[in-house]
Formats: sequence, C-alpha cells, structure tokens
Amino acid sequence: MKKQDKQLDGSHSRRQFIQTSAIAGAGMVLGGTMKAFADESTNAENHTSMIDITKNIKTRGYAATDESGQLSPYEFERRPVGDDDILIDVKFASICHSDIHQEKGHWGKQQYPQVPGHEIVGVVTAVGRNVTKFKVGDRAGVGCMVDSCMECNSCKAGEEHFCDRGETVFTYGYPLESEPTGISQGGYSNKIVVRDHFAVHIPEHISFQEAAPLLCAGITTYSPLMDAQLKVGEKVGVAGIGGLGHMAVKLAVSKGAEVYAFTTSPDKVDDIKSWGAKEVIVVDEAFKNMQAYAKTLDYMICTIPYEFNITPYIFCLKPGGTFTFVGMPIKSEITINNLMLAFARVNFNASLIGGIPETQEVVHYCADNGIKPEIQVIKAENINEAWEKVVNKEARYRYVIDAATF
Amino acid sequence: MKKQDKQLDGSHSRRQFIQTSAIAGAGMVLGGTMKAFADESTNAENHTSMIDITKNIKTRGYAATDESGQLSPYEFERRPVGDDDILIDVKFASICHSDIHQEKGHWGKQQYPQVPGHEIVGVVTAVGRNVTKFKVGDRAGVGCMVDSCMECNSCKAGEEHFCDRGETVFTYGYPLESEPTGISQGGYSNKIVVRDHFAVHIPEHISFQEAAPLLCAGITTYSPLMDAQLKVGEKVGVAGIGGLGHMAVKLAVSKGAEVYAFTTSPDKVDDIKSWGAKEVIVVDEAFKNMQAYAKTLDYMICTIPYEFNITPYIFCLKPGGTFTFVGMPIKSEITINNLMLAFARVNFNASLIGGIPETQEVVHYCADNGIKPEIQVIKAENINEAWEKVVNKEARYRYVIDAATF
Ligand SMILES: [Zn+2]
Ligand SMILES: [Zn+2]
Ligand SMILES: [Zn+2]
Ligand SMILES: [Zn+2]
Repeated sequence: MKKQDKQLDGSHSRRQFIQTSAIAGAGMVLGGTMKAFADESTNAENHTSMIDITKNIKTRGYAATDESGQLSPYEFERRPVGDDDILIDVKFASICHSDIHQEKGHWGKQQYPQVPGHEIVGVVTAVGRNVTKFKVGDRAGVGCMVDSCMECNSCKAGEEHFCDRGETVFTYGYPLESEPTGISQGGYSNKIVVRDHFAVHIPEHISFQEAAPLLCAGITTYSPLMDAQLKVGEKVGVAGIGGLGHMAVKLAVSKGAEVYAFTTSPDKVDDIKSWGAKEVIVVDEAFKNMQAYAKTLDYMICTIPYEFNITPYIFCLKPGGTFTFVGMPIKSEITINNLMLAFARVNFNASLIGGIPETQEVVHYCADNGIKPEIQVIKAENINEAWEKVVNKEARYRYVIDAATF
Repeated sequence: MKKQDKQLDGSHSRRQFIQTSAIAGAGMVLGGTMKAFADESTNAENHTSMIDITKNIKTRGYAATDESGQLSPYEFERRPVGDDDILIDVKFASICHSDIHQEKGHWGKQQYPQVPGHEIVGVVTAVGRNVTKFKVGDRAGVGCMVDSCMECNSCKAGEEHFCDRGETVFTYGYPLESEPTGISQGGYSNKIVVRDHFAVHIPEHISFQEAAPLLCAGITTYSPLMDAQLKVGEKVGVAGIGGLGHMAVKLAVSKGAEVYAFTTSPDKVDDIKSWGAKEVIVVDEAFKNMQAYAKTLDYMICTIPYEFNITPYIFCLKPGGTFTFVGMPIKSEITINNLMLAFARVNFNASLIGGIPETQEVVHYCADNGIKPEIQVIKAENINEAWEKVVNKEARYRYVIDAATF
C-alpha cells in the first residue's frame, strides 16, 4: 500500500507558496454577449416561466451575514449565463461541516452576505453557447469548486483543485469580479450558474437528495481511499463518523476493506455496524478503548473537523502505515507530537476534495453500487437548527435542504 | 522512492500508547556477582591501574544540576560491570543539540545531577563474563541508547529504539535501579558501563574524535535517508545545517543524491558547497529564496531542532514526496497547516535515531568512505561556552569534548 504519486512531471508552479488568503484565485471575468434563453419547458417545477440568461440571474437563498453562524433568507443575483456556463435549478443542497467553519470565520475573515453550500444537485435549465457537456433537462451536481484556469498541467490532469496557477475558485466566498455580489455564492439557494466543466452528471438511478452529499463528503473520502491503493482485506480505520466519516465507512467497506470505525458517540455504533464495519471503537477520554488496536491498521482516514490529540490514532496504525487527515480544523492547524510520530513510524498526510473526473467517478460508483448516504431532508427555515446539531454531533448523518423551500 | 515499511508482522505492543514520560522504560536490574577484574595493561593512557569491576565504578564528568543549561564538574558512580556489560574508558564525547534540550527540561522534567552525552567513543577496559562482542582494548562507541528488552520482535529485528515493550533505555536521564544515581548517565564523562549489545565497534581507520558524532548525528540522518530508498540523482533537500544537517548533506551526497541545503546562516554556504551540495539556499524571513524550488525535491530531511514554519519547506517537495523531521523541538511538538499539507500532497513523517545494527553500519560506511564530520575538539571546561554557541548556530559543526579533560 503506497500513497499514489500524483506528481505533475516536475512542472513549476506559479502558485508556489500560497497562503490561505491567496487561494482566492485571480478572479474570473466572463466576456461575450448571451443570446440563448433558458428553456423552462422541461422543468415543470420551475416557478419562473422564462429567464433572460444574458442578464443577472435573480436567486433566493440563505446567507450568513456575520460570524455568528446564523443564516437568514437572502435575495441576490448571480452572473448571466456565460458561453461556457450552465444554469442549474437547484433541487437539494446538503450541509457540510465546512460550511459552518467557513461562515464562522474559522479559516479566515469572510465577506458577507455569503451563501454557503458545496453539495448541490439540480436540473440544468439553460446552457451557454459553447456548452456540449450538458443540455437543458440534464441532472447535474456541483461540488467544492466552480472554476480554475483549465490550462495548467494540474487542471488538464483533472486535478483542478490543485490548479498550478492557484486559480481554483471554491464554490462560495471567493472573490469573483463576474459575480454581482463580488464573491462566489454557494448552493443554499434555488439557482446556480457554473462553468460547465465544474458540474458533474447525476445518473437517473440515484435520487437527487442522496446524490447531493457525494459532491463533497463522497469525493473527499473516496479520493484518498483510492490513492491509498488498498488491497481487499486490508484494515482501514475511519476516525470521526459524521457526514464524511460515514461515507468513508461505506466506501471502504464496498472496496473490500476491513473497516474499524472510531467514534465518540456510542449511539452511532449500531448504525455503523449496519454499514458493514468490522468493529466500532467508542473513543473514551483516556483513549483506553483504543489500546487493543495498537499497530493493527494499514491505513486510517480521519474526518474529525477539529484539532484533537492524534497520537492515540497514529498508534493504531502499523509501522509504515499512512494516516490521512481530511478534516479541516480551525485555522487548518493540527499539532503533532513529533516524537510519537517517530515512534509510530507512520506517514501523515492530508487530502482536499478531489478533481472533477474523480468526482464524476464517485457519483457513478455510488449510484451503480447502491452506496447511499444517510440523509435527513430539511426545510430552509431549519438550517440554523441543523447547523447546531452538526456542531453537537447530532446529525444522522447528512442534512439535505429541499431547495424548493428557499 | 518509498518509505520503507519497517512493520513488525503486526505484533501487538505492550507499549501501546506511550507518552513521553513512559519512555523511561521499566528499569533494568542487573544480577550476578562479578568475578572479573579489569585488565588495564592494554591501555597505557588509563590513569587507574586496577578497578574492581564488581564494585561501583567511580566516574568523573560534567552534569547539569538544574534547567539553567549550565554544566559543572561532577563525580559519581556507575553500576558494577555486569555479566553482559563492558566498561569503556571514554576518549571523546560530542555535543548534540538534544543534550541541551533535555537538560533544559524542554522535553519534560529531569532528575539532576544528570550527565548528558550520547555520542561516545573510547577503549574497552573490562568485559563481563558473558561478553563475546568485545574484548579489552577494543575501540567502542555508544550512541543514544544503552539497553532494551532484547526479546521482543523489534529488539530482535535490530530496532531496539522501538522496543515493543517500551523498555528502550536512552543513554541519560532514564530511571535505572541498577545505577547508583538512579538514572542512566551519559557520555560527558571519563568512563561508561554499558550492555555490550549497545556498543558498536569503531574501526581503526577513523579517528575517535571523528567517529563520535556518527553515534547520533550520523545514524539519525543515515537511517531515514536509507529508508527513503533514494535513487542516484534524486533531489534531496536538507533543512538545518548543524551537527545533524551537515552529516545529512555528506551522507546524501555520498549516496549519489543531488543535494539542496537550506540554511539560515549565509556564512555556511561555502562549507556546504565544499561537501558536494548542488545548491545552498539561504532561507530569508519571508522565505522568498525558497520559491524557485517549489515542487522540485523528491525528499527532504529536516534537522531544525525548533518549531518553525514548515509550509515553505513542504512546498519545495514534489507532490508525492516525503518530508522527514528528525529535529525534536521543544515539547516535541510541531504545528502543521493541514490545508497547506493537502495542497502540497506531501507525506510528513518523523524519525528517531536508528537501531544498533544500522548504527554499526553507518560507522563502517563513514570509515570506509572517508565521510568525516566537521569537528572542533574542546576541553570539558569549555562545554558551557560550546552549548551557547550551538544554540546560537555558531558551531562548525560538532563540538567534541576531549574526555581526558573531565
Ligand atoms: Zn464539504
Ligand atoms: Zn490550473
Ligand atoms: Zn543527538
Ligand atoms: Zn524489546
């Protein structure tokens, strides 16, 4: 088992030493006059009978207005549908812990009002003149990013989240001159305009509401699990069984791994076992319950979205094993005891979402193999309550907002 | 290039979740009555004509007495020479930054008086009845550890520093009932008693003073460089060019790597180039000089003994590359920006000294290939001054104490 080398032929990076603030990207300016009009006829549920896609797109959503973590209804405009864009009538958008971190300013200052949401599914209602990937009426999904340079080696290799030019545009909160609000605005809304390449197809044999969580929770766990090149029967630990972790359990089980799930919530044990986990370890404050698993695992993926003591987890891995952290804690910082890491002889790395081709892959993989997230559909008016439950580890396991309620 | 899997067949560890304080080990009690007497005849330089090795061994050295980092002369006794022990008349002991960290309490509270030093060379002047590895008159060296269980899988595999039972005894400051002072006492002294297995042979074709630094600086850099399974011509970064770093440069060059050295000391550049480094990067506060090296290195070993901003270093590695941290900062803690680690797609690990067989290997390798540390021999009375210079990055590159001056 070896971490896949995604090396890009030694190409120099213009991004180089990016800092968090620099991830914003260079801003994307769309040119060209729009001639097409949205074909609304295929979408009976759409309440606007005709939209001029050459004009800004009126949108309703829920936005954060400050770091309080309280969202409220928000009417705003999106950019017109550009030549390479599609307009999606959003059907569902699900709630990721990252939405909460970012809107509360845990990763850095934000511009408000800001509409979060990067697990978005719906129906295409208009396409720009250059678009061939989608046609009106297609089912489409949007995940954590909505644009990148599309010309660098990383982008051409389908690793748009690692754009060598640092021009990856994440789905919300990123400065964009083309957007009337000045930033990208996310999926807690009834419409979204996105460059066609950054939307994926949602096949018919998975429901919209079950597909939504795949756009972040699915790909973010699928990508490192695939990189780990696990063999059937290898022992895989999953730490933190929330939105991401429960997908990691289901995906690793489906790939033939023997899965060991680590949770601090005893009432999740039966659920997790029902998904095929070999064992569920309820983590206690002194980490006593973990001791029996010392040096047993080949690989561990950790989705805990806060800083925590990683040492007991590290010691569950066999020497030579790999620990991949996909949780993004406050300030994105994690403190490691170097001596313990040396004793454990474990490789520590981190992983961030996945590229568009792999996002499409995980959607098809889950649809084809009946791998479904555990969801609870809620109305927009219950978003604030749901966020509190996510923070309090009460989500079981992904809240999906019905976009008809925005 | 792949981190070698030193996995020990999944054997369970009695150590399990060791904490720093638990590394002390279980204490070693030596039994048996000593019958042998030291044969002093082979060692003309020894000033004591006859030692009763069944009694405590009177020793002179330099000890820390508190966390001030000031050492002073100290007379103490070591345990009698046990059946499996050898007595070494110390010739030289060199100064490692770890000595300073530990005596200042940076890694945890210490028992004082404590004699530091884990780069020790000298002549065997007595052997216990079971000893076959050494005979009186042999040249011998002692590094970072002096005992372990010797029965577990790790110990049997020559990875005594990873003793599965947590019984590795590090060379100084570890509780030992057998020692009259109650703790292991290090090499800043004129004699040392050590279990034979934990001493290595020093061949005739390397001087004592040039062999001493190999016992920690040599093995601590050699071991991860060998684990990395570098190919000739691969680009290896070395960060921090002090006692460990300068050995890492020389070792990596000798193995055929293209070495990039990162230092904050401009006046080290010429030295480093003379050792065969391809390029020397003088690291500035804004890390500007490092930007040209983004994504260029296959592997990096970092010997910086303090917490620092690892992100610019991480970004010098190609995606898929490995960063090995062998410096042990205060509290052994290092904070990583997880998001930056995800963007860099780099594996982070740590390494701790090396086993006894590999320590013997590096001594022979350096002797056979003429790889010599850069040393300055000092008298015992100059230890305090030397420690200050080490902390102030003024050492060039290893201070070696002449044990005749204790
Ligand atoms: Zn997410
Ligand atoms: Zn790009
Ligand atoms: Zn050392
Ligand atoms: Zn052992």
